[in-house]
This record gives sequence, structure tokens and C-alpha cells, in this order.
Amino acid sequence: MLSYKISIIGSGNLATRLAPELENAGHRIVEVCSRNPTNAKALVSRLYNANVKYDYDFTQSAAEIIIIAVSDDAIEEVAKEVALNENMILVHTSGTRPLELLNYAAADHTGVFYPLQTFSKTKRVEFDEIPIFLEASDGKTMRVLEKLARSISKKIVPLKSDQRKAVHVAAVFSCNLVNHLFRIAEEILVENNLSFDLLGPLIVETINKSLALGPEAAQTGPAVREDYETLDAHMDFLKDNPVRSEIYRIISQDIIDSK
Amino acid sequence: MLSYKISIIGSGNLATRLAPELENAGHRIVEVCSRNPTNAKALVSRLYNANVKYDYDFTQSAAEIIIIAVSDDAIEEVAKEVALNENMILVHTSGTRPLELLNYAAADHTGVFYPLQTFSKTKRVEFDEIPIFLEASDGKTMRVLEKLARSISKKIVPLKSDQRKAVHVAAVFSCNLVNHLFRIAEEILVENNLSFDLLGPLIVETINKSLALGPEAAQTGPAVREDYETLDAHMDFLKDNPVRSEIYRIISQDIIDSK
Repeated sequence: MLSYKISIIGSGNLATRLAPELENAGHRIVEVCSRNPTNAKALVSRLYNANVKYDYDFTQSAAEIIIIAVSDDAIEEVAKEVALNENMILVHTSGTRPLELLNYAAADHTGVFYPLQTFSKTKRVEFDEIPIFLEASDGKTMRVLEKLARSISKKIVPLKSDQRKAVHVAAVFSCNLVNHLFRIAEEILVENNLSFDLLGPLIVETINKSLALGPEAAQTGPAVREDYETLDAHMDFLKDNPVRSEIYRIISQDIIDSK
Repeated sequence: MLSYKISIIGSGNLATRLAPELENAGHRIVEVCSRNPTNAKALVSRLYNANVKYDYDFTQSAAEIIIIAVSDDAIEEVAKEVALNENMILVHTSGTRPLELLNYAAADHTGVFYPLQTFSKTKRVEFDEIPIFLEASDGKTMRVLEKLARSISKKIVPLKSDQRKAVHVAAVFSCNLVNHLFRIAEEILVENNLSFDLLGPLIVETINKSLALGPEAAQTGPAVREDYETLDAHMDFLKDNPVRSEIYRIISQDIIDSK
């Protein structure tokens, strides 16, 4: 079985989920580097034989691939500090940042390895179906990244940085912003002594329907029906909360305008 | 088995899903009334022995329960026109409209029977787990509605009109508004020659995580990380579309402000 030696910079949500998954696929995690030693130790404790590493000098490391899995705004700083051997591949995992950000590093082989998923330390995910978007500085690096990606997922998509940014923006709309609408819904229910659990079947059916029929055909509710009496009643219900009111108003108006 | 004779006014998404479900639970649909005879005939053709009815005079009808399943803004008109016998129960199915709207009808027994789900004619749903919110003019009517609701769902919630409105507003946030964010995400991907299918695993995990951990703990992404560089990059990406920009901005700001 194909096996790469990999070091990971970062110990956040993505690093915590990706490192064990790569080990399960037969690769070896050599090192975990983090500015937060507690997090790094916690992650290393889940791995077979990795070491905590406290600096970014990999010139003595056995790693073939260095994966930067830090928050987007820390990538540049890491790239500037990292020291590599000439055959090592340096990749970042950002949906938004261009491949060229890694030009700050003195690296001959760079790439992007962006798994499209919402990762949390406390929740396992199946990598099998997760699209992994790849970009590389050269063909040889791309072939290595494709092999690496295929070892954990069936869905590999080579993609340039500008298209990857579109994917990331679309992901924020359909994940982070959606999740915040769930939070608002929960708050409205709790304020009325009701439980968020009541919305479970509705939420599950909403996404099943949207994925099965497409979001345009799946739309229901007062806005798409142009039921202005209900829309007005809801705006009146929300009138003491300007932010909720405005979120309700602007999206409902866009539903009407998109018909 | 308990069995009621029921007539349904309306032939839209809810009526189309509810009528066969009630028949499967052992009740008899006597009549389907609709201002749209084509839709009414289509629904009747799915039922065992129902007739299309072209007026709202039920004084000669065998129905014990009349369910108004029309759009919210048509309920008042129906209530004003309907003619009933004294033992008949008249209910509407709206999340937003008060029970008292049925006072326009000369009915001794009125109620609300509100199943919290997104219904489409083209997609089956399981009623078993759907919360059904009930309200009634009197105890006897409530007991009938509870029996009716329990025959199709395990989740029965008696609820006053003002709390039911809160449920409906929360449902719009977590269903219709969420679905529109999926539509925006789809449009962004299609504009960049990518498929909405790529978001499937992310969307499924987003809702699984939100329902398992609660939306607050489940949140990820640039806003909750206060990654202003990514937020700025996304706003720049969206700058030619003021509506998408504003939706992204106001929800992201609320994610930050809710921390």
C-alpha cells in the first residue's frame, strides 16, 4: 500500500480530524507542530508514533509532505518561517488562500489540499465522500497529492485558486450562514419555552428535498407564495430585533425577486 | 380502529400529502374542495372514494371534520363562506393564523391542526416524526384533534396561537431561508462551472452537527474565528452582487456579535 510520511502544522479542527484519517489510510504522521503545545500533545496522543515539534525547521525531518492546517490568516506567517529540503512538498488546506501564498516558503513543490467539510474536534466525519480540491505547482506534485487524496476520498477535484474561492464562498453560505439561521430559530423557540428539537424533522426534510429536487424547485413558504399577510405578521413578530428582522426581510425579498 | 370522516378544503402541497396519509391511518376522506378543479381532481384520483366538491356548503355532507388546507391568506374567505352542521369540527392548518380566524364561520367547534414540515406535491414525507401543533375551541374538540393527530404522528404538541406563530417564524428561518442560502450557493457554483452536488456532504454534515451539538457549538468558519482577512476576501468576491454581499455581511456580523 502507498504510504507517505507526513508532518502536520496545526492542531485545530481540521488537523485533529485529518491526521488520524491519514494514518488509517496507511500513511505515517511524523510530526505535529503547533504554537499551542497542549493541543499538539492532545493530537499526538491520538496518533501511533508522531512527535510534537516546536519549530518549523523540517530540514532534519523524515516527512515527505508538510500539511499546513492552520487558520487562513496564519498561513503566510508559517510559510515565511518554514525551512524545507528540496524534495519536500508543502501544501496548505485553505479554501480561500491562493497557492501562491506558499511562495513565501523556499519550497520547490507546493500545493493546495482543501477538503470541503465542516470539521469539529468533537465529531467524527466520514472522509469517503468529501470532495478534496487540489492544486499544485507542478505535475509531479499534483500526482502525489492525487494519490494522497484518493487514499481517503473518492471525490478528487483539481481546481485553480479562483474557482476554489468560489467553492469556499458557496460553502460558507450553505454551512456557516445556514447554521446561524438554525441558531436564530433555536433562540426564537427557547424564548417561547419551546425546544429546538421540534425543528429536527423539518430541517432534515429541508436538506433532503433541496438536494433531491434542487433548491429552486424545493422552495416553499410565505415568500415564494408571495403571501404578504404572513410576511407582514412575521415582520411584526420580529420587530423588536432589528438584526433578525433584516435577515428575514432581505432573504425573503430575494426569494420573491428570484422567482 | 378509530376512523373519522373528513373533508379537505384545498388541493395544494399540504392537502396533497395529508389526505392520503389520513386515509392510510384508517380515516375516510369524503370530499376535496378546491377553487382549482384540476388540482382537486388530481388529488381525488389518489384517494379511495372521495368526491370533488365545488362549494363550501357542508350541511348535507357526511364529514365530521373539515380541514382547511389553503394558503394562509385564503383562510378568512373560506371561513366566511363555509356552512356547517352543529357537530362538525372546522380546523385550519396554518402556523401563523390565530384560531380566532375561524370565528368568521358559524361553527361551534373549531381548531388548529398545524403539522410542522415542508410539503411538496412531488416528494413523500414520513409523518411519523412530524410535530403536529394543536389548538381547539373546547376540550371535546381538542380530544378529537389529539386522536386524529396521534393516528399519523407520535409528536403532538398543544399550543396557543402566539406560541404557534413563534414556531412558524423559527420554521421559516430554518427551512425557507436556509433553502434560499442553498440556492445562492448553487448559483455561485454554477457561475464558476461547478456543480451543487459538491456541497452535498458538507450540507448533510452541517445539519447533523447542528442537531447533534446544537447550532452554537456546531458553528465553524471565518466569522466565528473572526478571520477578517477571509471575510474581506469573500466580501470582495461578492462585491458585484449587492444582495448576496448584504446577506453574507449581516449574518457573518451576527455570528461575531453572538459569540
